[in-house]
Amino acid sequence: MEMHINPAIADAALASAPPIETDAVIIGAGPVGLFQVFELGLLDIKAHVIDSLPHLGGQCVELYPDKPIYDIPAVPMCTGQELTDNLLKQIEPFKPTFHLGQDVTELQRQDDGRFVVRTSKDTTLLTKTVFIAAGVGSFQPRTLKVEGLDAFEGTQLFYRVKNPAVFAGKNLVVVGGGDSALDWALHFAQDDAHRAESVILVHRRDGFRAAPASVAKMHALCEQHAMQFVVGQITGFEADGDGRLSQVKLTGNDGITRRLPLDMLLVFFGLSPKLGPIAHWGLDLERKQILVDTEKFQTNIPGIFAVGDINTYPGKKKLILSGFHEAALAAFGAAHTIFPDKKIHLQYTTTSPKLHRVLGVETPVFD
Amino acid sequence: MEMHINPAIADAALASAPPIETDAVIIGAGPVGLFQVFELGLLDIKAHVIDSLPHLGGQCVELYPDKPIYDIPAVPMCTGQELTDNLLKQIEPFKPTFHLGQDVTELQRQDDGRFVVRTSKDTTLLTKTVFIAAGVGSFQPRTLKVEGLDAFEGTQLFYRVKNPAVFAGKNLVVVGGGDSALDWALHFAQDDAHRAESVILVHRRDGFRAAPASVAKMHALCEQHAMQFVVGQITGFEADGDGRLSQVKLTGNDGITRRLPLDMLLVFFGLSPKLGPIAHWGLDLERKQILVDTEKFQTNIPGIFAVGDINTYPGKKKLILSGFHEAALAAFGAAHTIFPDKKIHLQYTTTSPKLHRVLGVETPVFD
Repeated sequence: MEMHINPAIADAALASAPPIETDAVIIGAGPVGLFQVFELGLLDIKAHVIDSLPHLGGQCVELYPDKPIYDIPAVPMCTGQELTDNLLKQIEPFKPTFHLGQDVTELQRQDDGRFVVRTSKDTTLLTKTVFIAAGVGSFQPRTLKVEGLDAFEGTQLFYRVKNPAVFAGKNLVVVGGGDSALDWALHFAQDDAHRAESVILVHRRDGFRAAPASVAKMHALCEQHAMQFVVGQITGFEADGDGRLSQVKLTGNDGITRRLPLDMLLVFFGLSPKLGPIAHWGLDLERKQILVDTEKFQTNIPGIFAVGDINTYPGKKKLILSGFHEAALAAFGAAHTIFPDKKIHLQYTTTSPKLHRVLGVETPVFD
Repeated sequence: MEMHINPAIADAALASAPPIETDAVIIGAGPVGLFQVFELGLLDIKAHVIDSLPHLGGQCVELYPDKPIYDIPAVPMCTGQELTDNLLKQIEPFKPTFHLGQDVTELQRQDDGRFVVRTSKDTTLLTKTVFIAAGVGSFQPRTLKVEGLDAFEGTQLFYRVKNPAVFAGKNLVVVGGGDSALDWALHFAQDDAHRAESVILVHRRDGFRAAPASVAKMHALCEQHAMQFVVGQITGFEADGDGRLSQVKLTGNDGITRRLPLDMLLVFFGLSPKLGPIAHWGLDLERKQILVDTEKFQTNIPGIFAVGDINTYPGKKKLILSGFHEAALAAFGAAHTIFPDKKIHLQYTTTSPKLHRVLGVETPVFD
């Protein structure tokens, strides 16, 4: 799993900027969130899309970009990446605005019925409707489960590298067996600007889920004593008199525990999805899924819709195709909220000159 | 609209053949009926598909084979024919049996809960479940609206040519301005085996929706006095003392009515969809749509499901994509009826070795 590029730190200046006013905010840029853009677009509704990942395609691209999918109707086979690319092509005419690499941290209903949506990068939107297409939740780093260790998160324990300069000249322990762990270990062992005082890579086994070239490079650097690699797991820690993390305990496969002195602990165990702040927005939930009706796929809060894997209703199956259908009906449901005085008609992309105009295609002439 | 090839006449011998036993019968071979084959296939349920049209693709291919469709998710643009072709490719692993060019004339529930399904070609099936994916209904020839004329249907008035030999040596009046009218008029005017005594082609205007070469050929035959073409509409008829149709009245655009003596009247006004016998199966209807639940898309009769444009429920939109979703949930609903003792799990085509086996693809090896 590739996640070592974390774009931009929240710009404090943005916090005081006026909110972006819009008709629709979509939370989640996976296949269903992207198709929600399309269905809203057909009804003349422009959308802003927020995703915690720095790229489009959500789980599909994060977890199985190259694995074949066989059950998208009329697409006998495609990969997660191809599915995403096709959807991006399909929504091109509607020019959505994407806010990537940021979580929605706050959602508040105003007296006028609109919602304030704020993200971890302080993007603030004021919207008439919200579409939660967050799939299995937002992707958050898996944490190291050692009791009491979480107290050091952000000071000596890190699951992301936001600013590599912070780690220069320090004694580092890097934990993990994927590309992120390897890449950052190599970076701090040899980068001129950010070289650490020492780098110890820890992984539970002598085998990696990472680019073979990186693994070879790591072994070469170990032979040159530019870094160390130890097989084992972090099972405890010690703090000094000032409450600083001074050592971690490493238990090897032989059962013997050693101590590794350190300044900073970097852990890369990949990402796992979490429902996160959505759980606290007052939405009716059932086993961590958002309850919706099957007419508009609206939640218990009018104006908030939930589509795709994150919702539930009688008969729900977590199929991408079901999310597509839900997005279509949610768009019609929202149109009544956004244009209360307008009569909304179903039109067909095959025959409607109005839809051809919004799609930017010519209306063919047939007898 | 092309419909002049009507395959096979009901074989009387078939009527007494034992019924074909199956788990699922799908009525309608449009996009939703075809995708129903796929969703049933993933659950190991084999299907028989019946359609009134002689080809696959339903309305999509019958009414707009070449018009672009833009709202199939992840398919930015395709024609009705391409959509059908892609679906046929997708369902290939499941080898459905198609029964084309025949209407379902009878559906009866047996005491054991199974259904006897009989068609206009006397195909008889005995099935555990039925999926009505009949769209706007079955395509039936548009009739000539002249009071009392319907009494002659099948003896002297025809909307289809089943056996061309019947018309050889007769005085024919052929009505219509499309390919079917032109092709049959030309056929009976010049075919060695089936040549008529006389052929008069009647159309309401001097302009045709037919292949230009056929129109040119018709004019050439008229110049050679091998046939006649008259502009006008059939507005009445006369019968002789034996109750035989002897003349039709033809009113020209000048308002003058002439009489045309004839043996046989052939009318080709194209096809229009009709709900037909479905209306009499005891299904709960609402404005000619079949009422279903949104959990299994089951009708009021357990074991009968309705998917696609023919069904209705709160929020229903007549979108192909909604039909696809409905087909998926109906398949799961039916699986419980077909395999009452089996636990049905949702599996993903991306990861399930079982689904890879039924799809006939290799399970990729990923770490």
